[in-house]
Amino acid sequence: MKEFKGSIDRLRVNGERLRQTMETMSKIGRTKGGGVQRLALSDEDKEARDLFIKWLKELNLEILIDQMGNIFGKRKGKRDDFTPVITGSHLDSQPKGGRFDGVLGVMGALEVLRTLEENKIDTERPIIIVDWTNEEGSRFAPAMVGSGVWSGSLDTEWVYNRTDASGKRFEDELKRIGYKGEFPCKSFPIYAYYEYHIEQGPILERENKIIGAPKGIVCLHWYDIYVEGEANQVGPTPMEGRHDALCAAAEMILKVNELPSKVKGDLVATVGEINNYPNSRNIIPDKVHFTVDIRSWDDQLALEAWKILEKEFKAISEKRGCPIRVEETWKVEHSPFDKRLVQRVLDNAQRLGYPSLYMVSGAGHDASYMNQVAPTAMIFVPSINGRSHVEVENTKWEDCEAGVNVLLHCILQSANER
Amino acid sequence: MKEFKGSIDRLRVNGERLRQTMETMSKIGRTKGGGVQRLALSDEDKEARDLFIKWLKELNLEILIDQMGNIFGKRKGKRDDFTPVITGSHLDSQPKGGRFDGVLGVMGALEVLRTLEENKIDTERPIIIVDWTNEEGSRFAPAMVGSGVWSGSLDTEWVYNRTDASGKRFEDELKRIGYKGEFPCKSFPIYAYYEYHIEQGPILERENKIIGAPKGIVCLHWYDIYVEGEANQVGPTPMEGRHDALCAAAEMILKVNELPSKVKGDLVATVGEINNYPNSRNIIPDKVHFTVDIRSWDDQLALEAWKILEKEFKAISEKRGCPIRVEETWKVEHSPFDKRLVQRVLDNAQRLGYPSLYMVSGAGHDASYMNQVAPTAMIFVPSINGRSHVEVENTKWEDCEAGVNVLLHCILQSANER
Repeated sequence: MKEFKGSIDRLRVNGERLRQTMETMSKIGRTKGGGVQRLALSDEDKEARDLFIKWLKELNLEILIDQMGNIFGKRKGKRDDFTPVITGSHLDSQPKGGRFDGVLGVMGALEVLRTLEENKIDTERPIIIVDWTNEEGSRFAPAMVGSGVWSGSLDTEWVYNRTDASGKRFEDELKRIGYKGEFPCKSFPIYAYYEYHIEQGPILERENKIIGAPKGIVCLHWYDIYVEGEANQVGPTPMEGRHDALCAAAEMILKVNELPSKVKGDLVATVGEINNYPNSRNIIPDKVHFTVDIRSWDDQLALEAWKILEKEFKAISEKRGCPIRVEETWKVEHSPFDKRLVQRVLDNAQRLGYPSLYMVSGAGHDASYMNQVAPTAMIFVPSINGRSHVEVENTKWEDCEAGVNVLLHCILQSANER
Repeated sequence: MKEFKGSIDRLRVNGERLRQTMETMSKIGRTKGGGVQRLALSDEDKEARDLFIKWLKELNLEILIDQMGNIFGKRKGKRDDFTPVITGSHLDSQPKGGRFDGVLGVMGALEVLRTLEENKIDTERPIIIVDWTNEEGSRFAPAMVGSGVWSGSLDTEWVYNRTDASGKRFEDELKRIGYKGEFPCKSFPIYAYYEYHIEQGPILERENKIIGAPKGIVCLHWYDIYVEGEANQVGPTPMEGRHDALCAAAEMILKVNELPSKVKGDLVATVGEINNYPNSRNIIPDKVHFTVDIRSWDDQLALEAWKILEKEFKAISEKRGCPIRVEETWKVEHSPFDKRLVQRVLDNAQRLGYPSLYMVSGAGHDASYMNQVAPTAMIFVPSINGRSHVEVENTKWEDCEAGVNVLLHCILQSANER
């Protein structure tokens, strides 16, 4: 390999190649509504992984698959004993999800490596591209288990025993698609982790910015609520004395929705999932399960908000004679990124002429777990109309390209630091 | 055949045989929780029908299956040209339903015919026992289609094209279980229709009565509501500007629950079914479907109540920016039974020494449709704790027997009228 001729500052990625790569990848699991459905460890996930590995091989990367199915592709550094720079995201999607969430960060990283390769640019440190397994968590809860186990926050066996709605085990499905690797899923020392991703919210678009540099990721608290009532034929059962689990749940759902207005500070609270039993139009519901998702930059605020909610749930439960059971399913603390790397994202955006915004990430990402074991930063690009996790999820191609240019220079700078 | 020796007034059914018959039948589709699941046109429905027909054959009845799968068993009268007395109910059940709903009315009728047969009692008029297809409507909506088509209220082809949740057609499933008969499904002149059934409510038990004689069936209005919102990743989407379809639906569900307290008169209103999309804990719901069931003895009151609800739904829809679409799925007017037959039920209960109650039926029954084409009455027995459409649904065996004794004498009197 030879040095890139000319000032490295003028190096840019190939936006057209990026677009083609994204479009090829988005054919896998394509939905009628123009999105993709590539649930973790599904046949579509396998197909996306196979294609990804084919592209990694074209770059002569050293490929490694670990016991969680995380895929790493390593590009040698001049000083291969130096700790590497890692970048990537995930190839899995939500059910009827979009074409950008996750995959843009992997294909963007690929485009960075292709740009380095075609320009014969060597870096001091190795660069590793990564696809993390099951970031979405919509088939196997919870989310981000690949990076979670890798960073030491989750236990391999526990994740292996997670099941999907049809009762299939995570490990069995991982084996079935041929991606249970030999390599232990365990963190190794790294110099910097960059994750490039769509914003999944409306802020950048609203502020007319192209690059977002999140100072970190908000905390995330998940609860599962189980409400019990008494089933009866609806006609002959008087209203008095009913114990309607769905009515109790409906009151609780509205309390969740009102919660953010009751606390000072930024917080969002949502019920995304509800399951009603027996779910027959002429039977009073006797069992309802629903989820609560609370997020804030302020962990303490989120906990206090939950306390308010718990009290309200209890009052509703007693009033309606519908006992509830609460499971605290998942808690991730807010995660401030590495200040130096975040500043580097802002600096590169400015140098490249892209308007940028210092913000927070409302969504969880593999970067949350990576941040626990390595200096981490993220790069956001705008989501059109703020839409994400839906088939119409979209980002302008020029914004996609802009994000990869920022990623390229962040990586180059980190990878050439001694 | 010879006349019964002794006063026919002293004739009683065999309660022990009734219990055994009920227990044998309840093995078909038995659930772990002690109930039954015999969804219409399922393998379990077929098995129950086969057993029923075997028992009809033992009584040498003339068996007839019509194009809707309704099963008739005719016992000859002395004057076979006279219009017959019909009695029966349905063998299908709710998902995880009880062992008494429907089947008691068919097995009770069977016990009446067995009692007549073993005592060699002939009647002037023919007596027909019937099992109506798909009374429950939980697999194929709407309910009571067998009697609905027979009475001329529903169209055969329309019912044939109804599909279950997996897309299977009614007619295909009817053929599959071998119960699409040759005979046209069409009413013929009948003298009287009696339907024996559990109350499915708490009134008889509360009033300490054994026999209920409903003056008729309340009206029944079914609506399907479709709410639309905007899906988004929950974390990065601020609370302001959200269009959360589940929150809109939750508000509407509570309005349905509050409706009876807003109108004068007796009315019940229930949401039994809700389907939320995409039903993922980290996506704001963008589609919710739920059902509304309104019942009252007063048709006009039910319509006025719906008008109130519609206005409230519209206001919620506008406030939350969640458009709604309403389908008026089904409307059955309140149905007053034949006064003479209802009085006969009360008289026989008194003569037999069973405390009785003049009441209304809150549940729809095949008797609703039958009432449109023939003099009709029903006989109720208490539901323990008022529970029905659940696995713990229960009725004391002595109450079951009492109801069949009342049925026996009502039938004898009607069948011997010239």
